[in-house]
Amino acid sequence: MSKKVLDYLQANRNELLTSLNEFLSIPSVSTDPIHKQDVNMAAEFVATYLKEIGFEQVEVQPTKGHPLVYGEWNGAGSDAPTALLYGHYDVQPADPLELWDSEPFKPEVRNGRLYARGASDDKGQVFMHLAVFEAYMNTEGKLPINMKVCIEGEEEIGSENLYDVLKEKKEKFKADFAVISDSGMVDSGQPTILYGLKGFTGLEFTITGPSSDLHSGIYGGAVRNPAMALSHLLASLKDENEVIQVAGFYDDVEELADEERQLIKNVPGEDFTKSTGVTETVSEQGYTAKEHTMARPTLEINGLFSGYQGEGTKTIIPSTATAKLTCRLVPGQDPKKTQDLLVAHLEKHLPSGVTLDIKREPLSAKAYKVDPNHPLIEKASKSLTSAFGKEAVYVRMGGSIPVVEWIDSNYHMPVVLLGFGTPEDRLHSPNESFPLENFDKGMETLVYYWDEVRKK
Amino acid sequence: MSKKVLDYLQANRNELLTSLNEFLSIPSVSTDPIHKQDVNMAAEFVATYLKEIGFEQVEVQPTKGHPLVYGEWNGAGSDAPTALLYGHYDVQPADPLELWDSEPFKPEVRNGRLYARGASDDKGQVFMHLAVFEAYMNTEGKLPINMKVCIEGEEEIGSENLYDVLKEKKEKFKADFAVISDSGMVDSGQPTILYGLKGFTGLEFTITGPSSDLHSGIYGGAVRNPAMALSHLLASLKDENEVIQVAGFYDDVEELADEERQLIKNVPGEDFTKSTGVTETVSEQGYTAKEHTMARPTLEINGLFSGYQGEGTKTIIPSTATAKLTCRLVPGQDPKKTQDLLVAHLEKHLPSGVTLDIKREPLSAKAYKVDPNHPLIEKASKSLTSAFGKEAVYVRMGGSIPVVEWIDSNYHMPVVLLGFGTPEDRLHSPNESFPLENFDKGMETLVYYWDEVRKK
Repeated sequence: MSKKVLDYLQANRNELLTSLNEFLSIPSVSTDPIHKQDVNMAAEFVATYLKEIGFEQVEVQPTKGHPLVYGEWNGAGSDAPTALLYGHYDVQPADPLELWDSEPFKPEVRNGRLYARGASDDKGQVFMHLAVFEAYMNTEGKLPINMKVCIEGEEEIGSENLYDVLKEKKEKFKADFAVISDSGMVDSGQPTILYGLKGFTGLEFTITGPSSDLHSGIYGGAVRNPAMALSHLLASLKDENEVIQVAGFYDDVEELADEERQLIKNVPGEDFTKSTGVTETVSEQGYTAKEHTMARPTLEINGLFSGYQGEGTKTIIPSTATAKLTCRLVPGQDPKKTQDLLVAHLEKHLPSGVTLDIKREPLSAKAYKVDPNHPLIEKASKSLTSAFGKEAVYVRMGGSIPVVEWIDSNYHMPVVLLGFGTPEDRLHSPNESFPLENFDKGMETLVYYWDEVRKK
Repeated sequence: MSKKVLDYLQANRNELLTSLNEFLSIPSVSTDPIHKQDVNMAAEFVATYLKEIGFEQVEVQPTKGHPLVYGEWNGAGSDAPTALLYGHYDVQPADPLELWDSEPFKPEVRNGRLYARGASDDKGQVFMHLAVFEAYMNTEGKLPINMKVCIEGEEEIGSENLYDVLKEKKEKFKADFAVISDSGMVDSGQPTILYGLKGFTGLEFTITGPSSDLHSGIYGGAVRNPAMALSHLLASLKDENEVIQVAGFYDDVEELADEERQLIKNVPGEDFTKSTGVTETVSEQGYTAKEHTMARPTLEINGLFSGYQGEGTKTIIPSTATAKLTCRLVPGQDPKKTQDLLVAHLEKHLPSGVTLDIKREPLSAKAYKVDPNHPLIEKASKSLTSAFGKEAVYVRMGGSIPVVEWIDSNYHMPVVLLGFGTPEDRLHSPNESFPLENFDKGMETLVYYWDEVRKK
């Protein structure tokens, strides 16, 4: 019976939040080498926590990159199902720092929200699972089912080394199903079943003209300006109707079925202007913002730089110009093939008088979809409804969790995405936060869920 | 007789170069507030030098910005002409520092070239005048003509405060003609008369979409990407034939006469690929690289920035994207009107879903042209030919020296541009340098010129 477990979570709420803040205070930015020690500290935090609540075979497993934390508990017996819990303790960079209202790695509660880098993505949600395990162990002395826990430190940089480990030790990580809490709900208070995710690919390219910056007066008119060549090339990728112009880009895209468009239409939640601050939403011609974000591929410029960025004017023709691009893919699209199409487009449309250097993003992921009628999904829906007092909605989202698609295609086990973030969380942005209400109701959901799964 | 003067310059060459190096070692970067003290030091260097060689009324005149150095010598008597020598002691920023082979403010001679920021633009050329004055004073005890010297510290940031001073004290600066050495020769060893310069205008604009960087997965497909909007807007300014697409941009452009195209064709010098390292030159459709650089207007992107520029991938939609633009103008074009046309174009072509913030460059200049047959120009040509042993060629250049146009239209006196730089000098770029051969022959030219001008 889960009453005792729920009471424990309430009674120990302050202690749990204190531990979470400790976890969030570690700047475990995986993409930045100067944070290597912080990343290790975050791994140790998770491992220590698992040990203290009674998990076995807990280890901080080294990889070629950042370590992976593993632990398991098999006390539910061989007749009970086994779940694999996946999450990540690494976070995105915090810059631009000046846009944070409180320091990214000094957690602070304002208006019922916990502000910190990683509060929602994904330390906060990982910690909710740890707290629920602790509650079970300290009240009932056991978990309802067997559990394998795998918390990695490279999700924000593509989980490359995770896959090597999972391939190597396939049996060790094998389970009946996987649970991941690294996603969100469509709106605050609206429990959400996430049954589809987008894939991912990308590249960075640099255009070089003159061998050094040139005086714009003396050489202007004789050489191609790399920043202008970059602009022409980028503008050729997408038209002003947000339709991607890369030849073959949409060829393998699984078309959006009418029933699914209806389903998406029924999903509640704001129209994106509130949470983003844009004057109006802009989407691919023929699709709504919800359809495009959930179920249509995207191409985004993530960064640009060329020439002089300082104060005042510097009358130069820059030597180089660089752009970083990523695409989000939908079912049907192959990441490698899409990347090839992008490369071919850039090479074909490169203006004369400049050279092109392309760095392919080594990491990628296929899109993912699970049957919304799978019993494990229905149990999740039931648990969410009990905790939030509201029917769960079923959605697909634009985010990529490569490991989901990877587990699906390599382990052939269903993946249940139980995410508790909200559209206001500002993932990857300044002032990332997580609502404490979801911290409480999310843990309640997990308690119900493990009990539900236990039932035959 | 100038023989003694020339001998002095040879005999004291090492001492003169030592003084020049001292001048070049001062990082007088006018655009960067942290170098304010260095800028003052450079002004003091010039003033002290003038005093020591016997100039009168020498002063470091404060302005709203950086100070202006003035000094005069009237010993040639009222029947002798008076020249106004203009130059600047401020320099461009040295970044990117990592691209310099020796430190920008530690002058170093390699293969007959003096490497340092300002070696050619303009400290090196200003110093050649000081050295020639010193040579005259220390040998003949006088200069051939009366001299007013005006060396400012804001040329690289638009000379704004210089104009206030010149307006205020018009009589003080008035002379029979002006001489400026802040330009170059078309090729090493090819003496050049510069009879035309381009004008200048510019602006910086920022496109804002979401109020903060967004997760590209969750919001991609709902909002306009500011970096992509920037690319479309920039690409709309110029087509791939280098023809500027801003409505009305070419309306007032003084067409290039056939005789002048012939003159430009006769100008020797490399085709720009050697000095710039580009694979091929690219110019406005219908014009050669020389025609475009010398006599056709240009629009250049000087800098671009948006989103993530660090190592690795950050999957965001940036909140803002910024570009810095400048144009070089030819006779007929009004800088203010051209800036208005640019602003109107940007506002008209702004994609939906983003906002536009334009910072107009407050500084500008009209283009300038002088009659190549003016006696003072012919004397300059004769002096150059004597010093370099080669006929001088007549050219227009793409650089802007706003003060030239300003002196012409406000003082109505001819401006003689006696420049000794070369296409290999890398003005405004890493590894700026100046050939010592031109240091010697340039000073020789100046000695001949002052004597020539003295002759009735």
